[in-house]
Amino acid sequence: MERIKPRTLSGFMELLPGRQVQFERMAEALRKTYALYGFTPLDTPAIEASEVLLAKGGGETEKQIYRFTKGDTDLSLRFDLTVPLAKYVALHYNELSFPFRRFQIGKVYRGERAQRGRFREFYQADIDVIGDGKLDIANEAEVPAIIYKTFTTLGLKRFKIRVNNRKVLGGLFAALGLQEHAGDVMRTIDKLEKIGPEKVKAILTDDFAVPAATADRLLELLSTPDPMAALEGFRGQNELLDQGIGELSTVVGYLSAFGVPEDHFAVDLTIARGLDYYTGTVYETVMLDHPEIGSICSGGRYDNLAEYYTEKQLPGVGISIGLTRLFYVLEEQGYLNDQLLTAPADALVLPMTEDLSPAIALATTLREAGVRTQLYTEQKKFKAKMNYADKLGIPYVIFLGEEEIAAGLCSVKDMVSGEQVKVSPQEAAGLIQTGVAARNAGSPIRDRE
Amino acid sequence: MERIKPRTLSGFMELLPGRQVQFERMAEALRKTYALYGFTPLDTPAIEASEVLLAKGGGETEKQIYRFTKGDTDLSLRFDLTVPLAKYVALHYNELSFPFRRFQIGKVYRGERAQRGRFREFYQADIDVIGDGKLDIANEAEVPAIIYKTFTTLGLKRFKIRVNNRKVLGGLFAALGLQEHAGDVMRTIDKLEKIGPEKVKAILTDDFAVPAATADRLLELLSTPDPMAALEGFRGQNELLDQGIGELSTVVGYLSAFGVPEDHFAVDLTIARGLDYYTGTVYETVMLDHPEIGSICSGGRYDNLAEYYTEKQLPGVGISIGLTRLFYVLEEQGYLNDQLLTAPADALVLPMTEDLSPAIALATTLREAGVRTQLYTEQKKFKAKMNYADKLGIPYVIFLGEEEIAAGLCSVKDMVSGEQVKVSPQEAAGLIQTGVAARNAGSPIRDRE
Repeated sequence: MERIKPRTLSGFMELLPGRQVQFERMAEALRKTYALYGFTPLDTPAIEASEVLLAKGGGETEKQIYRFTKGDTDLSLRFDLTVPLAKYVALHYNELSFPFRRFQIGKVYRGERAQRGRFREFYQADIDVIGDGKLDIANEAEVPAIIYKTFTTLGLKRFKIRVNNRKVLGGLFAALGLQEHAGDVMRTIDKLEKIGPEKVKAILTDDFAVPAATADRLLELLSTPDPMAALEGFRGQNELLDQGIGELSTVVGYLSAFGVPEDHFAVDLTIARGLDYYTGTVYETVMLDHPEIGSICSGGRYDNLAEYYTEKQLPGVGISIGLTRLFYVLEEQGYLNDQLLTAPADALVLPMTEDLSPAIALATTLREAGVRTQLYTEQKKFKAKMNYADKLGIPYVIFLGEEEIAAGLCSVKDMVSGEQVKVSPQEAAGLIQTGVAARNAGSPIRDRE
Repeated sequence: MERIKPRTLSGFMELLPGRQVQFERMAEALRKTYALYGFTPLDTPAIEASEVLLAKGGGETEKQIYRFTKGDTDLSLRFDLTVPLAKYVALHYNELSFPFRRFQIGKVYRGERAQRGRFREFYQADIDVIGDGKLDIANEAEVPAIIYKTFTTLGLKRFKIRVNNRKVLGGLFAALGLQEHAGDVMRTIDKLEKIGPEKVKAILTDDFAVPAATADRLLELLSTPDPMAALEGFRGQNELLDQGIGELSTVVGYLSAFGVPEDHFAVDLTIARGLDYYTGTVYETVMLDHPEIGSICSGGRYDNLAEYYTEKQLPGVGISIGLTRLFYVLEEQGYLNDQLLTAPADALVLPMTEDLSPAIALATTLREAGVRTQLYTEQKKFKAKMNYADKLGIPYVIFLGEEEIAAGLCSVKDMVSGEQVKVSPQEAAGLIQTGVAARNAGSPIRDRE
C-alpha cells in the first residue's frame, strides 16, 4: 500500500496528551471565572457567509482570511469572535436580554505568514457586555476585576493591568491643538516605551509639526507617576476630556471594591489599542517579567458593536485573551505547573487472574466513587505494565490477585512514594481521591512570588 | 451606512443562550464520563492538508468535504475525528503510550444537502482505545459500560445497546455458503427491521440466488430471542465463526461486572455498521421510544487505524456520538431538562444607592464564595430590572439600599417563591448556593421511567 506521510500543518497547534490536559485546565479556569462574573457561554459557527463576515471589509485582516466557495456559497472562516458576536446580537436581538453578557472560547483562523509562536488556527477567549442603546460605566469598571481574577485563578502573580480612556486621549489632543494629527500622535506615543521620550519628541516636532513646548507638555503628562492627578490640571478644557477624566476616575475609584490590588493596576496614558474601534476605557495586561510578549489580555469600550448589521445602537465593553499564543508562551517560559497530574487516569487496575470479572468489578466500584480508572488487560510482562503507569504519570496502581480477591481487598501502590497497602475497594477509592486532590491542589501556572 | 442582513448559514447550529447552557451541560457530562474511564482529552486542528485527510480517498465523503487552497496549500476541513486521530497516532507514535485512550469532542464539517435536522457543522464526541500491534478483547467488552454510563449520566433511561461481532457475521456467511454475496446479504439483513423477514427472504432468494432453505436458516437465526444459544449450534464450522462467538461471549460475559444491566443490552446479529472498516465487535445504541432516529452512539473494533500513514499495525475500538444531532433530536422531542438553571448568574445584585461601592463589594464577596453574580447598574426602572432577572431565570435578586448597608446586611429575594430575607453577605452566599444546588440536582435529560 502506498502511504502518505502524516503531518500537521505549520501554524496549527497540536499538543501531546500531557500538554493538552494542561491546556484544558487553563481553558476550564477561564470558563469558571467568566461564569463567576455572570457571563453565559456562547458558541457560533466557525464558517460564516463571506458577505456577513466581511461586512466591515478592507484592511490587513481580509488578506489573511480563509475564504472559499462550496456550491454557490462564498464562505469564510471566522478570524475573530467579535464579528460573529455582532452578527449574533443583531440577528437574535429580539430574543436576548440586555445587558447581554457572553463569553466564548473558540478557534479562529488567520492565514498569517508562518513563524515561530504565530498560529493560523488559535483559540480566543473573549468576554463582552453588550448594552441596548446605553451601557453604564460600571461595566467598564468591572473589567479589571475580571482580568485580575482570571490571571490569579490561572496562577499568574506578576502581571499588571494597564488602563486608559480614549476620550481622555481625544480630549487631550484637542486641548493641545493636536486633533489634526491625532492618529499620528497616537501611533508615535504608542512607541514611547520602545524608543524613549527623546525620539518620540523628535518625531512629533519634525514629522508632525508639533510645537516643541506642546510635545514637552504631552511627554511630561505621559511620563508622570500620577497621571490622575496630572489630568486634574487639564479639567475644563473641553467636554470630551472632562467626560474621559470622569470615566477614568470612576474606573479607578471602584477598583478596591472590586478586589483589585493597587499594585496590579496602573493608569497608562500611552495606551491606545488601535485607532477607530474603541471609544472609552481601554485595557492591556502585561507580564512584568516578560514585557516583550506584549499584552496578554486586551480590550475596551466601543459604541457600536453591530453597525454593519443593524441600526440599533449596541455599545459594549470586552476583552480578549489569545489563549493558544498565551499557552505557547507560558510553555516556552516554563510557567506551566508540571506538578499537577496530567495522567489519563488516577488509578490503573492490574488484574492478576485469568478471569477478569473481579478486576472489572473493582474498576466499576472505583469509577462509581469518582476515581478515574483504567483497566490494563494487555498480555504484557509485569515490568511493561508498571512502565505504562509510570510513563503516563498515573499516581496509583492497583493489583488484584487471588489472595486479594479471596479477602475482598486490593493492593494499592502509590507510584511516587512506592508505598503499598492492602485495603478494601472503598478504602482504596478514598485513599486515591485524597492523594489525587493533594496532587491537583495547585494552579495551572506557577509564577514566582 | 449600507447594512448587510445578518444571517447564520443553514445547516449550522447556533443556539440561544439558555439552550447553549443545556448543550454545554451535556458536553460536560460526556467529558466527565470519558475521563472516568481513563480517556485523555485531545484536540487536533479542524484544517488538515487535503493529501493527509483524504489519504484513504474516494467514496461519498469526498464530495461533501470543504476543500480549498490558501497560498499553494491544498486544505480540507475534517469530516470526522477518526482520520485526524489516525494521523495523530501515526505522527506521534514514538511519544505515545499504548493502549492509547483518548476522547475528543470537536466540530467536523460535511457539505451535505441542507435539510431539517442535518448539519454541515456538527460536534462529534468520540472515544477510541488504540493498541500497538495487539489489543485485548477486554477493551471491546468495556465499551458497552462506557455507553451505558454516558447515557445514564445524561439522564436517558429508555435506551438499548445492541452488539454484534463482524467475525460472527463473516463466519456465518461462510458456514452458509454465502461468502460470495456477503456484502449484499449484509445490506439486505440490515433492512430486516424496516421491511420484515418475508421481503428480506424474497430479496435474498430472488436477487442473490440464496437457496430458500439457507435464507430460512439465516432468518431464523437472526430473529431468535437468544442468539448466543443459537450460535452455539454453529460452533466448529469455521475458525472465524468460532473466534467471533468466543469474542461475543466474552463481551456478554463481562457485562454484569461492568455494571451494565441486562435490559439495556442485546446481542443483535443484524447489526453490521458498514462493510469494510470494522473487524470485531460492533455497537449501536437506540432510544426505545424513538427508533426512527437510528443509532445515537455507534462504533466498533477495527484492525488497522492508520494503515494509510504507517506500516505499524494499530488495532482499536471506538465509539462516536453525533452530539449536535443528538441535541437537536432531544430538543425536538422534549427531552431537555428545562428545570435546571440556564441563567448566566445565580444572583443579580441591584444597587439602590448612587455610590456603587457597597454593591460592588457585596458582589465581590459573593463571587469569592463561588456565587455566579451579576451587578445590574443600568439606569432603568425597578420593574425593568426585575424583568431582566425574570427573563433570564436568575434565581436570586439581591437589594442593597442605605438601610441594608448601614446594618451590614442585604435583602435576598427568591424569584421562584417570592420570599425575601435580610441576611449577611455570607449567609446570602450560603443560602444561594444551597438553593442553586437543589435547582441543578437533576440530569441534563429527562426521560420517563
